[in-house]
Amino acid sequence: MSNTIGTRYRFTIWGQSHAPAIGVTIEGLPAGFEPDMDALAAFLQRRAPGNGPFSTPRKEADAPEFIAGLVDGHTCGAPVTALIRNTNIRSADYDALRRIPRPGHADYPAYVKYGDARDVAGGGQFSGRLTAPLCIAGGLALQLLAKEDVSIRARIVSIGGESEPEAMQRRMAEAKAAGDSVGGVIECICEGVPAGLGEPMFGGMENRIAQTVFGIPAVKGIEFGAGFAAAAMRGSENNDPYYYDAEGTVRTRTNHAGGILGGITTGMPIVFRAAVKPTPSISAEQDSVDLLSVRNAKLSVQGRHDPCIVPRAVPCMEAAAAAAVYDALLESRG
Amino acid sequence: MSNTIGTRYRFTIWGQSHAPAIGVTIEGLPAGFEPDMDALAAFLQRRAPGNGPFSTPRKEADAPEFIAGLVDGHTCGAPVTALIRNTNIRSADYDALRRIPRPGHADYPAYVKYGDARDVAGGGQFSGRLTAPLCIAGGLALQLLAKEDVSIRARIVSIGGESEPEAMQRRMAEAKAAGDSVGGVIECICEGVPAGLGEPMFGGMENRIAQTVFGIPAVKGIEFGAGFAAAAMRGSENNDPYYYDAEGTVRTRTNHAGGILGGITTGMPIVFRAAVKPTPSISAEQDSVDLLSVRNAKLSVQGRHDPCIVPRAVPCMEAAAAAAVYDALLESRG
Amino acid sequence: MSNTIGTRYRFTIWGQSHAPAIGVTIEGLPAGFEPDMDALAAFLQRRAPGNGPFSTPRKEADAPEFIAGLVDGHTCGAPVTALIRNTNIRSADYDALRRIPRPGHADYPAYVKYGDARDVAGGGQFSGRLTAPLCIAGGLALQLLAKEDVSIRARIVSIGGESEPEAMQRRMAEAKAAGDSVGGVIECICEGVPAGLGEPMFGGMENRIAQTVFGIPAVKGIEFGAGFAAAAMRGSENNDPYYYDAEGTVRTRTNHAGGILGGITTGMPIVFRAAVKPTPSISAEQDSVDLLSVRNAKLSVQGRHDPCIVPRAVPCMEAAAAAAVYDALLESRG
Amino acid sequence: MSNTIGTRYRFTIWGQSHAPAIGVTIEGLPAGFEPDMDALAAFLQRRAPGNGPFSTPRKEADAPEFIAGLVDGHTCGAPVTALIRNTNIRSADYDALRRIPRPGHADYPAYVKYGDARDVAGGGQFSGRLTAPLCIAGGLALQLLAKEDVSIRARIVSIGGESEPEAMQRRMAEAKAAGDSVGGVIECICEGVPAGLGEPMFGGMENRIAQTVFGIPAVKGIEFGAGFAAAAMRGSENNDPYYYDAEGTVRTRTNHAGGILGGITTGMPIVFRAAVKPTPSISAEQDSVDLLSVRNAKLSVQGRHDPCIVPRAVPCMEAAAAAAVYDALLESRG
Repeated sequence: MSNTIGTRYRFTIWGQSHAPAIGVTIEGLPAGFEPDMDALAAFLQRRAPGNGPFSTPRKEADAPEFIAGLVDGHTCGAPVTALIRNTNIRSADYDALRRIPRPGHADYPAYVKYGDARDVAGGGQFSGRLTAPLCIAGGLALQLLAKEDVSIRARIVSIGGESEPEAMQRRMAEAKAAGDSVGGVIECICEGVPAGLGEPMFGGMENRIAQTVFGIPAVKGIEFGAGFAAAAMRGSENNDPYYYDAEGTVRTRTNHAGGILGGITTGMPIVFRAAVKPTPSISAEQDSVDLLSVRNAKLSVQGRHDPCIVPRAVPCMEAAAAAAVYDALLESRG
Repeated sequence: MSNTIGTRYRFTIWGQSHAPAIGVTIEGLPAGFEPDMDALAAFLQRRAPGNGPFSTPRKEADAPEFIAGLVDGHTCGAPVTALIRNTNIRSADYDALRRIPRPGHADYPAYVKYGDARDVAGGGQFSGRLTAPLCIAGGLALQLLAKEDVSIRARIVSIGGESEPEAMQRRMAEAKAAGDSVGGVIECICEGVPAGLGEPMFGGMENRIAQTVFGIPAVKGIEFGAGFAAAAMRGSENNDPYYYDAEGTVRTRTNHAGGILGGITTGMPIVFRAAVKPTPSISAEQDSVDLLSVRNAKLSVQGRHDPCIVPRAVPCMEAAAAAAVYDALLESRG
Repeated sequence: MSNTIGTRYRFTIWGQSHAPAIGVTIEGLPAGFEPDMDALAAFLQRRAPGNGPFSTPRKEADAPEFIAGLVDGHTCGAPVTALIRNTNIRSADYDALRRIPRPGHADYPAYVKYGDARDVAGGGQFSGRLTAPLCIAGGLALQLLAKEDVSIRARIVSIGGESEPEAMQRRMAEAKAAGDSVGGVIECICEGVPAGLGEPMFGGMENRIAQTVFGIPAVKGIEFGAGFAAAAMRGSENNDPYYYDAEGTVRTRTNHAGGILGGITTGMPIVFRAAVKPTPSISAEQDSVDLLSVRNAKLSVQGRHDPCIVPRAVPCMEAAAAAAVYDALLESRG
Repeated sequence: MSNTIGTRYRFTIWGQSHAPAIGVTIEGLPAGFEPDMDALAAFLQRRAPGNGPFSTPRKEADAPEFIAGLVDGHTCGAPVTALIRNTNIRSADYDALRRIPRPGHADYPAYVKYGDARDVAGGGQFSGRLTAPLCIAGGLALQLLAKEDVSIRARIVSIGGESEPEAMQRRMAEAKAAGDSVGGVIECICEGVPAGLGEPMFGGMENRIAQTVFGIPAVKGIEFGAGFAAAAMRGSENNDPYYYDAEGTVRTRTNHAGGILGGITTGMPIVFRAAVKPTPSISAEQDSVDLLSVRNAKLSVQGRHDPCIVPRAVPCMEAAAAAAVYDALLESRG
């Protein structure tokens, strides 16, 4: 069972790109919490389609409707369910995909797994659209973490291999002009996280964050702190020396550990970077197969697509981190 | 709860570096399976300490004792419990660490989390020694996967930033001579994995493998297929074109996806790389803090340590991958 | 986390009596399954309020709306979410209950647990209304079990201590006339269940069915086969002798075990009985406390209530059994 | 996966009756807890075989050996593993059972489930002997609960239908003389449990206690408070009226609810009764089947058996209740 994550802040995401609705059911929200709906809407807006020159022109209000768990605007201890209606459905675009899987998409694995019953429209349950309910769960976690002085911010580190803003813009513009797409790297920093969160072995913060972040389509790698660069270092270089700061708090002079040692937070900021592959939907003709005639085939993907989903993935990264951190925070109190 | 992983092939690892024993309890092994104990011993031997010039001189037979779940050498449907006695315990080495946490180790987070009750000897439950029971669980999974024509092999890609064997050896020798340590990158390839394994969203193969692999101490990053390199590619470059091979099987011409799309296996080899940081135990003096006197302090780590744990981490990577893949394989049949 | 149950057929129930909606999200439905919506509606109708002289006059269409997981009327492999809108909300009836908890209801424990944030309207998340989504999950399981020749039927064994139909009716009529309520015992029989389902120890069929059935409000006891009567028997009397029937199938001459030994099904019908307490909502004045003034108080419950919920609990028992049996059936195949 | 239970106080029981060992791994014990090993031994002794005239003459020291999780006699935050060596193994007694399943035992379901690979010796993993590790986990929970002023005591309510001590003794003596066995009912009372424990729906205290108690072999029914008797009551009779006691605590004048409403504790004692069937091992000849020749057969069970296991089940009931209550207590703090 795959659509549920978390032990104390636990949520189940459901829906498909072109189903009547997508949504999330959340257990573990404290009773009496009043979500700031405007802040949540603003957070979701950062992820919503149709907001920039490099985003799909599909327009969805993406306004969450809370249908359970709230009374007079506050949580009551019952699970919270929020849904987003899918208003802008163009299923006809996807009929051809039933025969010819798009390279780089989940179309072919979905065919193997679910056969003809699979939902091909808009990528079905594999659509990036399912990150909207992730952002609801994560957005509420962000609000709760803010009350604990934990803040989480992600930013784009590089796009198409370029790390300068201007060069990044150029890469995206080039990709759009070419009917192509381009990927990037996002860095996420969680500040104010208390030391001692996470569990040893498989319940460590790296395990949890990784398990959540790989739930965002297109993520193909994650590294914490110095990450892959640490593999080229000496221990004397990578180890973060401890010291007491003016307030008597133990801190480290560097943060190559990314705030996590042995799976447990050190009190330094949690830092991770995720690799986002270029969205596989491109207009150029590609080699594929015809599953019906069992022959090789050519495919040109039509429809509305983002030449670069990296900007929209930024709040998703914050949402994933917030969900994992808040889950561990609740766990640390039990 | 952190020491348990898996949904259908589920195991719980327990023990500390200097406890009477470390071990594992495994649920989900099919009844009637006869483990090849020689093959398992050989697999564990690859991970065992004391086997090479760059490994800790601590000698442990690491011979697993199966105390439950087997009858006449085969599984009977009951959970299987195997333990390894810790025979070579030198707790006295670690008394100073109770006051002064080693940079890069879990000592300080463990202090925050468990206070004075924590087990400091040999790293306690955070010790790399706990990868021995992981290798028992993974080693049995490897044997079961072999019956399904799935083979998993890991290899060292680089050490200290060098990828040529000779240069890697030199990096290790230099680190040893300097009382320092050095990290590396390991690549793991799972061949013969059928298409359709894994679940969408948080139950994908990337999620599962990452959650397991980050259970190996010192892992700071993971990437699948092209991984971070994909973030610099165009979609037209990164997408793996499909074709029918001579047997009528759908395959891809490249494997930038690392055998996984949408979390589900494509039938191509699963490929991932993990970054292993340099082991934090070095003999050079380091800056740390004295938790008792609440003052900055200097630390020189004594004791037996590996200047490079990367070679011993290779079978651990195979074990982690095997456990995750076998778990998904069982799940795909339910 | 309490609103989720099941390992392979897993569902999460959410909503409160007077929230905008109640509903359920189900994972584990096989892809390609076409629910018979008419049969499901008929099944839900057996549980719905307003259908008999002893049922609450609250009228709810209780028509489930499937908002995710179906494509063209069949499952697609994604989680299925169905909701029921709460159309007939009279929250004003419940304002007094905020101060004075109803004896026998969850009002007081909910106050202790959630404080002023709790949802008091209609019992909030503790309402018997939440059995409607249970009946959706169970009703779909019943349809899938029917394809495997498993049938599940529950019936009323006694009401108010009477086991004759006429006497049962009289007890209900008397209770209604007195503004009182009356409980009863329901027996559920699952026929066609293959031998070998369930797991040892805590995953046995008794464990699973009990865990599910106690999710139905007002259930205070459960027994399997001879149950409490077995406690008064000799082993020679209670043991069910085996024999081969004409088809060569192992059967037992009696079924005191209720089809379960060691937690595993024997191939004989699963038989259990559940005790349903009288619904606590009665119009007679009762002793309670005023949580605001911290004084003893009197309470007369107004509003719409069932003098006997036992008839409506019958399909709930079938739903709970179906969910648990189908879950174990899927598990046995994995 | 069946041998694990609990969300915050979680343990996995493993072993078979005649395996080298049986044991338990426990997660969730607070770091720094010093188990009273003498008290634990005394508790285990109440369950151990060979202690009374109606108990099996099999002698086992049942002394637990803690091989992980303790340092200098206290917990360190790592999982705790304890094992009991099986010293008195007489596997030869059980060879005939491979062909002819004992009525009332799990032999036949185990055959269906695991085939020839099953462990028949002493009932394998279905043996009542597995309640010893349950008593380790529960015994430690009892010690931790005592620190919170929660006490749990079970007692025999009836044996063979008799509730007077003398008559109970007579029933057991008669059964023993006849080579037969006899069952009974045990009542368990948990005092000092704070109000507000448990979760709604499937995480209620009744659900948890039932799921745990049905893990004890031979339990065929459970009821809370008035239980089945409540089904014959009027609501006005069954409802427990609230009042403030002298200390200003809300209490109920009666406790028909057994301390649980809506799955949540009320602050009144948790009261439940469990029906224990007569142990199926009797010396009288019984009808069974020969699974090899596929013919009906006669069976006379040899070996060492208890004519009445009810006295030994009393501490098991306390252990099960303690584990469930402590789990909920931890959960309520998270």
